This record gives sequence, C-alpha cells and structure tokens, in this order.
Amino acid sequence: MRIGELSRRTGVSVPTIKFYVREGLLPAGELTSPNQASYGDGHERRLRLIRAMLGVGGLSLARIGEILAVVDDTSQPVFKLMGEVAGTVAAPSLVGSGEPSDAARESVAALGERRGWHVPPGHPDGDALARTLTEAERLGHEDFAVALDAYAEAAEKVAEADLSYVRGLGARDDVLEGVVVGMMLGDAMFGSLRRIAQAEETGRIYGRGEGA
Amino acid sequence: MRIGELSRRTGVSVPTIKFYVREGLLPAGELTSPNQASYGDGHERRLRLIRAMLGVGGLSLARIGEILAVVDDTSQPVFKLMGEVAGTVAAPSLVGSGEPSDAARESVAALGERRGWHVPPGHPDGDALARTLTEAERLGHEDFAVALDAYAEAAEKVAEADLSYVRGLGARDDVLEGVVVGMMLGDAMFGSLRRIAQAEETGRIYGRGEGA
Repeated sequence: MRIGELSRRTGVSVPTIKFYVREGLLPAGELTSPNQASYGDGHERRLRLIRAMLGVGGLSLARIGEILAVVDDTSQPVFKLMGEVAGTVAAPSLVGSGEPSDAARESVAALGERRGWHVPPGHPDGDALARTLTEAERLGHEDFAVALDAYAEAAEKVAEADLSYVRGLGARDDVLEGVVVGMMLGDAMFGSLRRIAQAEETGRIYGRGEGA
Repeated sequence: MRIGELSRRTGVSVPTIKFYVREGLLPAGELTSPNQASYGDGHERRLRLIRAMLGVGGLSLARIGEILAVVDDTSQPVFKLMGEVAGTVAAPSLVGSGEPSDAARESVAALGERRGWHVPPGHPDGDALARTLTEAERLGHEDFAVALDAYAEAAEKVAEADLSYVRGLGARDDVLEGVVVGMMLGDAMFGSLRRIAQAEETGRIYGRGEGA
C-alpha cells in the first residue's frame, strides 16, 4: 500500500510516519519508483505497536526504540530477548531507594527456595521485592509478608496464562510483540481485576451496606 | 512526646510536621502548656503513613488529604470506606480513553457472571478492564482475552490474602491504614513477583540459554 493508505488505516499522520522511519522505529517502505514507496502489513502492525507503547505504556520514543531493537535482533535466544523486553516495558517498581533489610532479603531468598525460583542476590526484581518488604517493615506492617506465598502463587498463574498465550502465537516476531503487548495490557488488566476482587471479598466479609 | 522527639523518631523535620498540622493531615498535639504540645504513638504512625503515601505511592498532598479524611470519617461503614480508599490510592488504569467495544463489554459482563461478581455497566474498574480489552483488539491481540479467567482467579487469590491480612489487624483505624499500605505495597509486590514468575515460566518453556 501507499503511505497515504497506511496513514488512513492506522490513524497516524503521514509526517509522523515519515518521522518514525527517520528515527529508525519503522523500516522504510520498499521503493517502487524513485519517489514512491510501498508499505505492507508488517508496517501497519509495527505502527500500531508503536502507538500502543506510546499511549498505553506511556513510554518515550527513546525507550520504544530500545525495545524494537531487541525485538528485531534475530541473533539472540528467545529467553534472553523476552527477559530484556519485559525488563524494558515494565521496569522494577521503585519502592524505597535504600538498602533492603536483612529480614526482607531472607524472606525473598526463602520464597525463591520454596518455589524453586532463580532469584540470586542482586536480581533486580528480587531486590525490588525486598525493598517493598523493607518499606512494609518501616510502616509497622512486617506481617504483610505472610501474603507472599499467596501472591507468588497468583503470579505463577498469571505467568502461565501469559506464556500459554504467547506460545500460541508461533513465529518469533509475533511472540516478542505478544510479550510487549501482554506486559503492558496484562498489568492494566490485573490491576482492574484485583480491585474488583478486593471489593467482592470486602463485601463478603464486611457486608455491602445499603445500596451497594 | 515533644515535637522534637517525634521528628527524631520519624525523620520528618519539625517545620514539616508543623506544616502537616496546619494542612490538616496530622492532628494537632495535645497542649500541655500555652506553647508546648505533646504527641503520641498515633501521631508517629500517621506521619509514617503520610511519608509512605508520598514516597511509595507518589501521591500528592491534596490526594493524601482526601484519603486521610476518608480514614478518619467514623460515620461510614467499613465496606464503603475501603472501596473509597482503594479507589483513591489505586485509580483505574487509564488504558485507552475511547469507548470500549461491544465485544469487550460483553467479555467483562460474562466474566462477572461466571465469577459471581458485581460489575454492572459503568463500574469504573469494569470499564477500565473493557478498555484494556478493546486496546488488545485494536492491536490484533483480541485472543489475549482467553487469559481473563486465569487472571481473575489470580486476582481473587491476591484479594483473599489482602483481606485475610487486613482482617487480622482488628481495629477500624488499623484496618483502613492496612488497606492503604496494602494497596500501595501490594501492587509493587505483585509486579515484582509477576516478572520473576514470567522469567521462570519462559525459561521452562524456551530454555534458559547459557549463563542464565
């Protein structure tokens, strides 16, 4: 298709499409004459993905460029790529910038052992988790750590659903795109569901009051 | 205790403590002489909670004021309060500002029916969920909706763990404070665990490559 049709189909203006091509986010179209290029389904999908990362993910163009570079690098094994994509899309939450307490570190290590997880000291997500637990201690809620195993079990359930979806996508490009979409939309989806489930559970335990 | 000791214990400066009192975020101390006030454990805990909402939650002072007003309003039933606190701490994710598609609305309604949830049309979290699903459709990932039930089950598990923790806190003030802390720290905790679980599941399915 011509650039005009690509623009109509995706709702992205022609100058913006050209800008993305110049910035290396979108491959150039195939030249069909000295001043005319043709674009395909791949361009259309890539444009939608860029818009989603801007809109849903709230990512900067620089960060989007990094993610797409990872997606396009065919020299790396899928496992490594997925980790990098996931890490770039959803960076570890910045909870407490200080050092985690010893007790929090031990809780994380013990959890890893119970579940057979690879969370060596210095693991970014393991450290973020330890900092969250340290913050709970500081607030006098160190017992909140008793919820860890239930949370971990729920996280495994979500991860299984994610991977089972992504696996069904087949081709490598589709898989990595699915990881980007899944990390962004999955976080939003779980957030909504968690709030609904909490309201249900609260109503069950404390009653819904009138008019609920 | 005097204001100086409250400052030392919490790491919050005396002028900042006075500012919080003027703003109505912290109750004034009890006057023990015309120009001396005494502060108790309640003040200390309230200060830590304010700092946590600022630091971990990244909330504005105005929003913190609204949440504390809800926590302090003893005329409301606990169920209503918890909903309001949860809604203020963790607002529905802004995924797609447009109208949800009919298919997405139906998916949410059907999910609610399958799980026995109260998610009438217009429910803020139900709507946010429908908008997320609509975004997935737009990106050509409408099949991601198959993950909904697994996600919902995981969300119920997390909500049960939250409520079972909060219930154990006993008194009304402690319960509501626990909801604030739990919503903020629980989101961060689940985010870390989800990424760890995804890496584990990815490694299991695609192999870890060398050096992992």
